[in-house]
Amino acid sequence: MKRLRGFASDNNASVHPLVMDAITSVNVGHAIAYGGDPITEEAEKLFKTIFGNETHSIFVYNGTGANVISIQALAQSFNSVICAHTAHINVDECGAPEKLSGCKLLPIDTCDGKITVDQIKKHMHGFGFEHHAQPKVVSITQATELGTIYTPEEIREIANYVHSKGLYLHMDGARLANAAASLNCSLADISIKAGVDVLSFGGTKNGLMFGEAIVFANAELAENVKYIRKQSTQLHSKMRFVAAQFIALLKGNLCIENARHANLMALKLANSIKGIAEIQLTQKVESNGLFVILPREHIQALQNEFFFYMWDENRGEVRWMTAFDTTEDDIEAFVKVLKEIINS
Amino acid sequence: MKRLRGFASDNNASVHPLVMDAITSVNVGHAIAYGGDPITEEAEKLFKTIFGNETHSIFVYNGTGANVISIQALAQSFNSVICAHTAHINVDECGAPEKLSGCKLLPIDTCDGKITVDQIKKHMHGFGFEHHAQPKVVSITQATELGTIYTPEEIREIANYVHSKGLYLHMDGARLANAAASLNCSLADISIKAGVDVLSFGGTKNGLMFGEAIVFANAELAENVKYIRKQSTQLHSKMRFVAAQFIALLKGNLCIENARHANLMALKLANSIKGIAEIQLTQKVESNGLFVILPREHIQALQNEFFFYMWDENRGEVRWMTAFDTTEDDIEAFVKVLKEIINS
Amino acid sequence: MKRLRGFASDNNASVHPLVMDAITSVNVGHAIAYGGDPITEEAEKLFKTIFGNETHSIFVYNGTGANVISIQALAQSFNSVICAHTAHINVDECGAPEKLSGCKLLPIDTCDGKITVDQIKKHMHGFGFEHHAQPKVVSITQATELGTIYTPEEIREIANYVHSKGLYLHMDGARLANAAASLNCSLADISIKAGVDVLSFGGTKNGLMFGEAIVFANAELAENVKYIRKQSTQLHSKMRFVAAQFIALLKGNLCIENARHANLMALKLANSIKGIAEIQLTQKVESNGLFVILPREHIQALQNEFFFYMWDENRGEVRWMTAFDTTEDDIEAFVKVLKEIINS
Amino acid sequence: MKRLRGFASDNNASVHPLVMDAITSVNVGHAIAYGGDPITEEAEKLFKTIFGNETHSIFVYNGTGANVISIQALAQSFNSVICAHTAHINVDECGAPEKLSGCKLLPIDTCDGKITVDQIKKHMHGFGFEHHAQPKVVSITQATELGTIYTPEEIREIANYVHSKGLYLHMDGARLANAAASLNCSLADISIKAGVDVLSFGGTKNGLMFGEAIVFANAELAENVKYIRKQSTQLHSKMRFVAAQFIALLKGNLCIENARHANLMALKLANSIKGIAEIQLTQKVESNGLFVILPREHIQALQNEFFFYMWDENRGEVRWMTAFDTTEDDIEAFVKVLKEIINS
Repeated sequence: MKRLRGFASDNNASVHPLVMDAITSVNVGHAIAYGGDPITEEAEKLFKTIFGNETHSIFVYNGTGANVISIQALAQSFNSVICAHTAHINVDECGAPEKLSGCKLLPIDTCDGKITVDQIKKHMHGFGFEHHAQPKVVSITQATELGTIYTPEEIREIANYVHSKGLYLHMDGARLANAAASLNCSLADISIKAGVDVLSFGGTKNGLMFGEAIVFANAELAENVKYIRKQSTQLHSKMRFVAAQFIALLKGNLCIENARHANLMALKLANSIKGIAEIQLTQKVESNGLFVILPREHIQALQNEFFFYMWDENRGEVRWMTAFDTTEDDIEAFVKVLKEIINS
Repeated sequence: MKRLRGFASDNNASVHPLVMDAITSVNVGHAIAYGGDPITEEAEKLFKTIFGNETHSIFVYNGTGANVISIQALAQSFNSVICAHTAHINVDECGAPEKLSGCKLLPIDTCDGKITVDQIKKHMHGFGFEHHAQPKVVSITQATELGTIYTPEEIREIANYVHSKGLYLHMDGARLANAAASLNCSLADISIKAGVDVLSFGGTKNGLMFGEAIVFANAELAENVKYIRKQSTQLHSKMRFVAAQFIALLKGNLCIENARHANLMALKLANSIKGIAEIQLTQKVESNGLFVILPREHIQALQNEFFFYMWDENRGEVRWMTAFDTTEDDIEAFVKVLKEIINS
Repeated sequence: MKRLRGFASDNNASVHPLVMDAITSVNVGHAIAYGGDPITEEAEKLFKTIFGNETHSIFVYNGTGANVISIQALAQSFNSVICAHTAHINVDECGAPEKLSGCKLLPIDTCDGKITVDQIKKHMHGFGFEHHAQPKVVSITQATELGTIYTPEEIREIANYVHSKGLYLHMDGARLANAAASLNCSLADISIKAGVDVLSFGGTKNGLMFGEAIVFANAELAENVKYIRKQSTQLHSKMRFVAAQFIALLKGNLCIENARHANLMALKLANSIKGIAEIQLTQKVESNGLFVILPREHIQALQNEFFFYMWDENRGEVRWMTAFDTTEDDIEAFVKVLKEIINS
Repeated sequence: MKRLRGFASDNNASVHPLVMDAITSVNVGHAIAYGGDPITEEAEKLFKTIFGNETHSIFVYNGTGANVISIQALAQSFNSVICAHTAHINVDECGAPEKLSGCKLLPIDTCDGKITVDQIKKHMHGFGFEHHAQPKVVSITQATELGTIYTPEEIREIANYVHSKGLYLHMDGARLANAAASLNCSLADISIKAGVDVLSFGGTKNGLMFGEAIVFANAELAENVKYIRKQSTQLHSKMRFVAAQFIALLKGNLCIENARHANLMALKLANSIKGIAEIQLTQKVESNGLFVILPREHIQALQNEFFFYMWDENRGEVRWMTAFDTTEDDIEAFVKVLKEIINS
């Protein structure tokens, strides 16, 4: 029998009670569908408050949807998109970016999920050469799929370089809040204000039931996005229920609080296993995930009690994710079982 | 100031309280994402009970998603899809079917939203001729976009013909429950059991917050659908919240009750306006919508008080939709205002 | 045993001897591939002479390629393309336009292959409505697939209307030369100069071995076309062999002469069968094709001796095409056999 | 003033005189279009003689077309295609494979353009995991884009492994003849008979004007290819002119002779520059290309007299290709100028 809460993913978590309250509270009467309602209008205004008045935001169902719509808004099918080899768009979306945008993805090998200007530079050739998919978008993930984080300076450096070459910078911010909490920055400081052109802003991994946002640095970039969203099957009819969730997340400080708590639990877990010789952390713990190599016989034993995923079968690396609802008790129970297994 | 409830669309309605209860009741602890949880398993079993043990069902976000995934499961890009000119896939999905499946749509002109075997026959040529997109799917809507309904016999006749030609029959059942309530049939009787191969089964228009299902007549047809769903951006992570809604809808009789009520309200409205000379019904009222021509000066006046949409600008035709939460008072208030406008 | 030359299609014809001479004459030494050679440069200049200095032309393999590249240059995937139901893009390209552009095609029923402003108007709605594929291109065929012809005035009227709505006008000019010869106009007068934005200009049906051109009214419209051409698999490496053919066709008057001869042969055939009661012409003979209803028993007998195609199985309508290499003897032989069959 | 023949690419070469003769010799009368003519039938039979009776071959325009049609025949959009990073499908087709097939390409880094079973193995994971594009095709190039060659044993080993995993093996044989000539094998021995499922067989780089073939190991694999070819814009109307070229190439020994000569010229060039300290060969010379690093100041000087391309700007590497029409005089002239430049 598995525990109530595991470490598989932050999208295994529940819906935050305040978010659930917001959902039920807007369930009154009729509202114009597809975003023409006052709650969606309020949410859109709130996004302007947070990301800047010149930004334009829309809501979609999920992260894959946010990412493929972002790419379509920025690129044509003969373009290419540069990203980390580990990027969600490259390995976790079953080829949705290629299918929906027609673009080629150019993955960059990384150790920590982060890419650098020097690595991007290697793809800056073939402009004007028709045989070559034309580079148009660089996509970075914040926090990365390996739990690491770009500083505002690092993002700015990439943005400046990318813009100097006539490309756009996209950020997959499925866990942007975790990065912001970790850096003690605002959401905008490490995305739009650092030079990001289009941001996929995650909600589901941070306490929502469903719903992600796409934030465009300006309205021009969003010119055709309503058609792209609809044609990409990502337009929800009863939009007030997405908008209300984002309002609950962003109106107070819930977004950062949730993320900070998840980060803290990850740190607590990291501290708790420090010194266990059989366990090797493979990445810095900068947000809400641990990447860990441990003996294979222990992995299976631990998975009998807690949900979590193998990350790299070849080297016996697993991923432990914390969430807004992970408790100190969860961590202690987990570490207790882990130690028992290792010492048995 | 608009009224709380209008007649714009059944997707302007709220979430049914029992559905909302189901949502909040599953918000406990963690659950495996993407459908690996016990609630989704329960919902899948429930669908087998309803549609047949040999069927296979999956959950997606919305109707456009259900339709384009269905087409991709049945056809390759060099195929064509035959449907009514008024079909949602043809006029309300911003070209999503063409973009995601690559298929050509072959629209058939209809007066009442229903297509016939004779009309389908006209497209049964060019097989084996490589210049011609090869017909592979016929798609019908139940209830149709014009509120009319196919009888089980009509569906069976189309299915038999379609299968005799080596094609598949798809049903867009965004309002299947309204058709079932109207015909006093089961959901299965007027879809899978009448010969439908793949069914888009609607939830959002019948009291859900979000979520539609795709029902495959057998597992073979669903062979690759999990990849298609993911690549089409329609895979939800916190799947339990979709599954729980469908369980609430289908476990008792809520699905049919909701639909029956909406149908009744449409009938009540139709009866209330009978005899008003300025108003002409253009379609039979068989489900939960009225299609009505009335003087243009009255339309605007009425829209000042109630939400509803122009259907055909050219001939001054509007659509009035009822929903599970439309009340008798709503109908009476609407008719009262309508009569005042006409008589003023 | 079939005759040397039939009436199946102008693409069953041979390569004109002057075109073949041009091909062999450029087969000397090496030339930069993909159009960087002096022969292609010369051809491009020739196109400017003919269609206007502000135009920009590229070469592709075939008509389907020219059409789908044109659409991609003018529209995005959420757009729609309005055309005659009989248009090559709608019925003879196996869904290539939908697959490669993602666009929806909106076919208009026509009796003679020509569409009118009034018919286009019916599709001029839903602008800004995200559920609706946004109209962006009107595509007309000159001469039409039914052998009829738009006058310069008719084209101008369509172009003016189309432009007033913010759309583009595409012309499928697979048989543009036949139209020009028939109207005694220049190629430009009935295309670019009449308001066409992008023209698919046919070569293969008028004596070339392979090769079509796309003429853009200005360089801006052609901005990304070299990438679109490559990604659509339509970029030929040994381009000099396409360019040389077009030079042979266009430098003298061969293009018009070939077309005029084909048209003349069609007229001769039409005149020869006038008065035969069993034969009914269904279209005006304005270019190089006849559309004819005749008793089914005669069709098969005639097909035993000459190649030609059934056009409409339902009403027993066949198509007889003439080509630049059809001779008076061919016509006479054909008519002789035809009369023998009818009188037997 | 550049020389008549350069070293830019084998597709800068002319058309072989025997191929041109074949073209002109079939230019008689009419022939059924799209491959229904006796010359195409003859060519298809000839392909069966060469590649095996159970194979099925079709003709297309160019190599990009052959490759993207092959991928579409073998894979669905949720699949991935594993290939060398240097593969033509990965770097020289402007994203056509992604756009037309929707598949993800998984490039493998290689030093010599060849991939190994061990490298393929690293991508053999995620089967059944819907977030992951499902591996379905491995594509190798013979001879590779770097001029190297797979032995029959190497191909067989890859084929066996690929088939054991339920994948297909595609070969891009744009220069298959050069590989066959180099290995002294038949065309079939190093492709279909070594386990290749679908072969893109090149003609244009070996003396044709235009035209490539796709050879399917069996008819089942080719089941839908005629529709795919048409929808991918690769169906030529006057097919006899493609078929005649392939007959000329394959009926005698012209295919191998042309390739052998080109290979010999490459070897001669390699031998002529041996011992020049400023020049470093980066790849084995196994077919008709040399990859060479030389001082940048010399590159420009040499390019003033001969066409050839920079291969890798970063490390100052150029590519020198020979062709069937490269003469010993061309080599000597080139080496003479090269030495003068180096010694000046």
